[in-house]
Amino acid sequence: MLAKVKSGEMALDDAVARLIGLPYQEMGFAKVDHHRELRCGFPEVVLGQGKTAEQVAAIVQQLSSASDRVLVTKADEACFDAVRQLVPDASYHPVARAITVHRGGEEPLRPGIMVVSAGTSDIPVAEEAAVAAEIMGNVVERCYDVGVAGVHRLLDHLPELQQAKVVVVVAGMEGALPSVVGGLVAVPVIAVPTSVGYGASFGGLAPLLAMLNSCAAGVSVVNIDNGFGAGYLAALINR
Amino acid sequence: MLAKVKSGEMALDDAVARLIGLPYQEMGFAKVDHHRELRCGFPEVVLGQGKTAEQVAAIVQQLSSASDRVLVTKADEACFDAVRQLVPDASYHPVARAITVHRGGEEPLRPGIMVVSAGTSDIPVAEEAAVAAEIMGNVVERCYDVGVAGVHRLLDHLPELQQAKVVVVVAGMEGALPSVVGGLVAVPVIAVPTSVGYGASFGGLAPLLAMLNSCAAGVSVVNIDNGFGAGYLAALINR
Amino acid sequence: MLAKVKSGEMALDDAVARLIGLPYQEMGFAKVDHHRELRCGFPEVVLGQGKTAEQVAAIVQQLSSASDRVLVTKADEACFDAVRQLVPDASYHPVARAITVHRGGEEPLRPGIMVVSAGTSDIPVAEEAAVAAEIMGNVVERCYDVGVAGVHRLLDHLPELQQAKVVVVVAGMEGALPSVVGGLVAVPVIAVPTSVGYGASFGGLAPLLAMLNSCAAGVSVVNIDNGFGAGYLAALINR
Amino acid sequence: MLAKVKSGEMALDDAVARLIGLPYQEMGFAKVDHHRELRCGFPEVVLGQGKTAEQVAAIVQQLSSASDRVLVTKADEACFDAVRQLVPDASYHPVARAITVHRGGEEPLRPGIMVVSAGTSDIPVAEEAAVAAEIMGNVVERCYDVGVAGVHRLLDHLPELQQAKVVVVVAGMEGALPSVVGGLVAVPVIAVPTSVGYGASFGGLAPLLAMLNSCAAGVSVVNIDNGFGAGYLAALINR
Amino acid sequence: MLAKVKSGEMALDDAVARLIGLPYQEMGFAKVDHHRELRCGFPEVVLGQGKTAEQVAAIVQQLSSASDRVLVTKADEACFDAVRQLVPDASYHPVARAITVHRGGEEPLRPGIMVVSAGTSDIPVAEEAAVAAEIMGNVVERCYDVGVAGVHRLLDHLPELQQAKVVVVVAGMEGALPSVVGGLVAVPVIAVPTSVGYGASFGGLAPLLAMLNSCAAGVSVVNIDNGFGAGYLAALINR
Amino acid sequence: MLAKVKSGEMALDDAVARLIGLPYQEMGFAKVDHHRELRCGFPEVVLGQGKTAEQVAAIVQQLSSASDRVLVTKADEACFDAVRQLVPDASYHPVARAITVHRGGEEPLRPGIMVVSAGTSDIPVAEEAAVAAEIMGNVVERCYDVGVAGVHRLLDHLPELQQAKVVVVVAGMEGALPSVVGGLVAVPVIAVPTSVGYGASFGGLAPLLAMLNSCAAGVSVVNIDNGFGAGYLAALINR
Amino acid sequence: MLAKVKSGEMALDDAVARLIGLPYQEMGFAKVDHHRELRCGFPEVVLGQGKTAEQVAAIVQQLSSASDRVLVTKADEACFDAVRQLVPDASYHPVARAITVHRGGEEPLRPGIMVVSAGTSDIPVAEEAAVAAEIMGNVVERCYDVGVAGVHRLLDHLPELQQAKVVVVVAGMEGALPSVVGGLVAVPVIAVPTSVGYGASFGGLAPLLAMLNSCAAGVSVVNIDNGFGAGYLAALINR
Amino acid sequence: MLAKVKSGEMALDDAVARLIGLPYQEMGFAKVDHHRELRCGFPEVVLGQGKTAEQVAAIVQQLSSASDRVLVTKADEACFDAVRQLVPDASYHPVARAITVHRGGEEPLRPGIMVVSAGTSDIPVAEEAAVAAEIMGNVVERCYDVGVAGVHRLLDHLPELQQAKVVVVVAGMEGALPSVVGGLVAVPVIAVPTSVGYGASFGGLAPLLAMLNSCAAGVSVVNIDNGFGAGYLAALINR
Repeated sequence: MLAKVKSGEMALDDAVARLIGLPYQEMGFAKVDHHRELRCGFPEVVLGQGKTAEQVAAIVQQLSSASDRVLVTKADEACFDAVRQLVPDASYHPVARAITVHRGGEEPLRPGIMVVSAGTSDIPVAEEAAVAAEIMGNVVERCYDVGVAGVHRLLDHLPELQQAKVVVVVAGMEGALPSVVGGLVAVPVIAVPTSVGYGASFGGLAPLLAMLNSCAAGVSVVNIDNGFGAGYLAALINR
Repeated sequence: MLAKVKSGEMALDDAVARLIGLPYQEMGFAKVDHHRELRCGFPEVVLGQGKTAEQVAAIVQQLSSASDRVLVTKADEACFDAVRQLVPDASYHPVARAITVHRGGEEPLRPGIMVVSAGTSDIPVAEEAAVAAEIMGNVVERCYDVGVAGVHRLLDHLPELQQAKVVVVVAGMEGALPSVVGGLVAVPVIAVPTSVGYGASFGGLAPLLAMLNSCAAGVSVVNIDNGFGAGYLAALINR
Repeated sequence: MLAKVKSGEMALDDAVARLIGLPYQEMGFAKVDHHRELRCGFPEVVLGQGKTAEQVAAIVQQLSSASDRVLVTKADEACFDAVRQLVPDASYHPVARAITVHRGGEEPLRPGIMVVSAGTSDIPVAEEAAVAAEIMGNVVERCYDVGVAGVHRLLDHLPELQQAKVVVVVAGMEGALPSVVGGLVAVPVIAVPTSVGYGASFGGLAPLLAMLNSCAAGVSVVNIDNGFGAGYLAALINR
Repeated sequence: MLAKVKSGEMALDDAVARLIGLPYQEMGFAKVDHHRELRCGFPEVVLGQGKTAEQVAAIVQQLSSASDRVLVTKADEACFDAVRQLVPDASYHPVARAITVHRGGEEPLRPGIMVVSAGTSDIPVAEEAAVAAEIMGNVVERCYDVGVAGVHRLLDHLPELQQAKVVVVVAGMEGALPSVVGGLVAVPVIAVPTSVGYGASFGGLAPLLAMLNSCAAGVSVVNIDNGFGAGYLAALINR
Repeated sequence: MLAKVKSGEMALDDAVARLIGLPYQEMGFAKVDHHRELRCGFPEVVLGQGKTAEQVAAIVQQLSSASDRVLVTKADEACFDAVRQLVPDASYHPVARAITVHRGGEEPLRPGIMVVSAGTSDIPVAEEAAVAAEIMGNVVERCYDVGVAGVHRLLDHLPELQQAKVVVVVAGMEGALPSVVGGLVAVPVIAVPTSVGYGASFGGLAPLLAMLNSCAAGVSVVNIDNGFGAGYLAALINR
Repeated sequence: MLAKVKSGEMALDDAVARLIGLPYQEMGFAKVDHHRELRCGFPEVVLGQGKTAEQVAAIVQQLSSASDRVLVTKADEACFDAVRQLVPDASYHPVARAITVHRGGEEPLRPGIMVVSAGTSDIPVAEEAAVAAEIMGNVVERCYDVGVAGVHRLLDHLPELQQAKVVVVVAGMEGALPSVVGGLVAVPVIAVPTSVGYGASFGGLAPLLAMLNSCAAGVSVVNIDNGFGAGYLAALINR
Repeated sequence: MLAKVKSGEMALDDAVARLIGLPYQEMGFAKVDHHRELRCGFPEVVLGQGKTAEQVAAIVQQLSSASDRVLVTKADEACFDAVRQLVPDASYHPVARAITVHRGGEEPLRPGIMVVSAGTSDIPVAEEAAVAAEIMGNVVERCYDVGVAGVHRLLDHLPELQQAKVVVVVAGMEGALPSVVGGLVAVPVIAVPTSVGYGASFGGLAPLLAMLNSCAAGVSVVNIDNGFGAGYLAALINR
Repeated sequence: MLAKVKSGEMALDDAVARLIGLPYQEMGFAKVDHHRELRCGFPEVVLGQGKTAEQVAAIVQQLSSASDRVLVTKADEACFDAVRQLVPDASYHPVARAITVHRGGEEPLRPGIMVVSAGTSDIPVAEEAAVAAEIMGNVVERCYDVGVAGVHRLLDHLPELQQAKVVVVVAGMEGALPSVVGGLVAVPVIAVPTSVGYGASFGGLAPLLAMLNSCAAGVSVVNIDNGFGAGYLAALINR
């Protein structure tokens, strides 16, 4: 039938068709979007913070019934305990504070993503980025504690940096590392400000503003402490 | 000689070698970085704002003596007049407020970049993004005035959107468009907040914060009104 | 007597008469405004936060001695325990964190209010709005977890949306949902930003600013997390 | 045909049907939304600020070719001159800085809206609200310069206030007037902060925050200086 | 000798003489200023917050050895326990969270100060103001819970208000009460914003800005929650 | 009649009586409050900024028809020209940017007010304070350019300072002067932050915050650049 | 005489003696502090901004009558014209926007100060620092346009950097340069944020916060655009 | 070898040589920079906050294996317990919350540094500055509780102040002390804002802005509560 509508409206119908068919699971407190994996290439990711452990566990159970890969971010151990009750093959990444379900055969992993962090305290956010990129099928190169006040530590890693296809740079305090990295590579740099610091850091505002004002082209920014967002975006770019 | 240093230090030497050799042109008020094209894939871009017309013209002359492509952003007509004196084949893009020099044979252009804007007033920033991506060798698809308050206008363009490899989304006011686009595509979305609006927009702070908090994964953000940064990054991703 | 004052002052007297007669109950730490129900159509609502459980309980006792409907917002369970000692027929709504007293015969309920929320974590604020509207005599349609990153979930509810007489839209993060809803309906939209989120959400500042800058006409905004305010206003509009 | 699709998908189709059919006029720099009048009850309103006079004039010409009522806000006289060239029956409201086209027979006007302003300097924003409400078919009662530092001036108008069905309250400086009005009436109050003031007003931030924190229930807020938004919303509520 | 210095320098010497002679007690972590009572009319007041209970107790002991009146603000019960060990006749005011030592015969108290508060939650700050004014020799009239959303409660107290020589007005949320009071009286109004509220109150920023922008003349402002400062200033004015 | 109402309502009636009788002059764009002089001891003061010269002139004409003293603040010379047309005996104070009308016999002036300013650039605001206090019947002692970086300049004026009954302290930049003055005197100090400065002054935010956090008791603050407010308050205190 | 006061008070007297003797010149709108040169090693510096050209000229005339070196900052050409009328041997530095008077024999200049700037647009502030340091008797090494996005340009100057005794680093945008410099040198680094940039630079807030959060030890910060402050401090350190 | 490269590249090589040779210890979560002591004159300092006690202990063990002096800041007692397990000769400074290792013979200490604090609550930050300066080989003069509201307490210490070669001034609240000190001495003043205070202090923002706007030349600022940064910088200046 639809094939018979007049040609000028066809584009609209395509759009409609793509939109309509999307199924989701009504859970009362959540509408789990099963079609997202088809539409965006990865199932919905669950932000653990602000949800009860029970809510997270129920959502993970739903998602994992339809997908081989599930990711929960900013989840504490209590949350993981609840998930493990319902989904026994879930894993916990304590530094990244992430829960993953990763089933199925071994597909080949894509190299090309490097995660760089400025200080020791930025590692949890960097790990969140790395775990997110890994579950999306990537090998992640890590290079931690290379802040700009000892720039030789970064330069020592220049060869690896320059082989990356996309670089995630995680930094708190003055947030200068993405600019320095951005001047050394010819690939996209995803900057992640962290709330590490005190005083005039104002919860990560200082590195956020610095990164947005980066004088290096090719740098874009995600939310403060949003390691997941950076890792996910890196995976999209690396496809 | 360097080949004879002991193997453990070799990585460092590589780094050094890459860093040292970079030539630049000392101009007193500027150090023009001729090597940048090799290092980052595109010659240094000139921010017109905050420089005198004479400074811009001199820098463009320097850059265009060594490169076939030059880009100046946030430049007014007076600035272009000064440039044209020294570089007669420069062009001016009045909506984007950009000056370009683009010489040489016709290389094939890469498709894949789409620039979407929310309102009519956001077009100058969107055009800055488009011009930047074009001079880096891309065909740019434009889709303007598709703000979220009339979401059907965006859905009408869903097929083109879903064929893009990277989408630049430009929006002022509440900055909601990147989240909606991000939920419809499976590719990187670069969000550009604009200073369009008044009152509690606070010069673009409102859309900036909104975009940083986007609930759609795959969205990253550049500075307010930084169309160039988004276009440049889109070109890097589209390579 | 007052009828004899000269005509020119009559309007003033009307005003005075309305103001003067308003009785209230002096409790030392509070002046309970019994006349408010006549003046504004609903008895004074108690903000639980910032008061001791004992103060809340005493105020509820006072109010419930003169009115059939009482509402306390942002009250924890300890607060409810104190209230229940003095007012045994009070109820607690744990998700909304609200205490209600609702006595008397069954008046017919008014349909027309819909409460929409963007994410699972926004539900407590949405429920506060719903409970407030319900105690004021309304049937409330709920539609939760329909954030803009999966816009098809919202579109699925378009028919209900378009039958509402007023829509309360609750969203944290980028706060984009009210603009999308506002573009789809021809009725007032009351936007409630929530403090859900982290980093550059800055405690709800991001969605607050976004909602204030909404490009959709017909949208107004209440305080961050102020579900009650939105539900109350929706009830006024729905009268 | 569509009637034959299976019942479970029918709701979706309804939604789709409503979305798809919406026509708009592609103008290159704008997509004029002719269907908006059907969908939202009033044609698209044009924000003059940030557009060239020529863009505004062309959009008004388009809109007025399909609708009897057009409204442009924040437009200066030069903008009106350009509009008048193309649409000779347009009118200019200099205090409100609004352009209107209002054709057709005399429909009866709805009473019920009152616009109250705190100071003389708030009048332009108040007038923008009034003009917006009037073009949507309402009679607007005005009550200006009744700031809280001389509260008797407001009380003198209490009878009119208490007959309104919705009240728009415009105030700069400390923004206290909506709270006082909200305590006196039992109808929705739409608060409009203005950028009137200096110093710690911070461009209207002070009254904006005050209004969001109003202790009076039934108050909601629109953007700083957004008289139009308040007038439009008042008209929606008054329908 | 000093009398012999030439007349032109004499003013300087006066200044010097007043400055030099001021004795203070070196305590290592504090320099207790015994002369302050002569210079400013009241001994140094101790801010309990940010000091250890032991530090507070030692300072109070020092001060009370040389003065009949001592005041500690923002002190919890643990702090009072430490003070009571060293200064047995100290008293604690639990609502105001203040410690006082008040010895000596009965001097006559000065009437003239009224403390007004907008809501029940503002009472602790209001009490801090009242306690401060009382220990400086004043009778304090209290009028609590008279917020602007029920303005008749304030008007009921107009006669007392208009007999005050100075009025302290304590309010959180929108901070409108000082403007209304300031328009009703012809005496200085000291406005105290409180951190009561949530969301866009931003810890008291909303009422602070509102009060600074008060349209009523004769209003000045002290720090958020600084009841002491207001009570002390009221006492100075009432002298 | 009113004397016959029962005693319990009498207080209310007093309040009402005071409120009702207040006459004002309706001017369309303003309601001139003639009774204010009785109620608050001084006629309404006109803020010139944000009003047209014609509006100011008309208001001044109204006020000066009923009062011997009129004050307009933040008025430029063009505004004064318009006023002079209608009120020939008005005067202009160019440094303070104030217009005054001051008629009638010579009442004796009250000494006791001192205005102190930190820098040369703060003088316009200091003069606004002085002019306001003078028209309210006070002699004003001025002491300018005594900033804290050369504290001996202030100490030289200590004797005059210590004879004042109230001190207005005007300062931009770090806003430290009120704290130093407040530690030297035993009378109320009214602090006026100014927008003098650049960079991190943020339009006067820096001295505003500093003054609100003053460690000296007896200091209160008015709006940035609000010299009038300080002068008016000083006059109230000095009565 | 003073020698006879008892030894314990001697320190106080010394203090007093130093304070009292300080002469200054009363100019009505300014108190020129002639003694400052003795006390602080350099005569008072005049901030041109916020003063009239006439005021600046009069102050310069006063200062130059008693000192061989005078500095005016943030002065435009009109200001210099007024100064030149009264002080013919004054000079103007157009890039730095500074006026200097520098008389007398040739004392030997001290090397040791280096001024580094990130971008071409930062040069005016850098020059203000250099001019200030020069008039205080220093040779200043300049190194401009060495921003972190091309870090090799900075490394090329490492030898000079490492010979400096104090380094002034001027940067706008992300303000990262001081951290990188601070990690390369073992001397004090004075960081100067500039207002160069747009959007989320927020007038220099971004580099200011970045510099305050520098991860390199030995870095301190002055006000946005305060080149003078940095140059003056560098001269103090270099003594 | 390197000696043979052509002269023009020699400067670069020097730079390179200095950079390359820097050894560091890869610890997985940290790269300990052993060469920093040579490069910057003091080994890397460890910020305890944001690291686990185990991480701090391991880093201290590493650093103390190669250096005689180690400093950890913002470390609690639990952190010290972990350090003491691995490095038994470490010491804890409870007021400063610092851990130090200080071995080796007695080198002579340099006088010249004075640490001044405004209030008792600022002492922990002042002590952090003092401990940092001491471990770098300085004698530190302390002068605490000399806030500007009792300026005579500061003047009493003027002789010591004027003998210092560099002064660290620590202050919360209005942050005025550095300006007063800066006007009294002719040496560098390092200002440290503290988060001491409440309300409009906004976590130290108030004194931070005040110090940045200091009218006294020679003042620079470090991060809020960054006593270490000030002490370290003072030691650099005092060398």
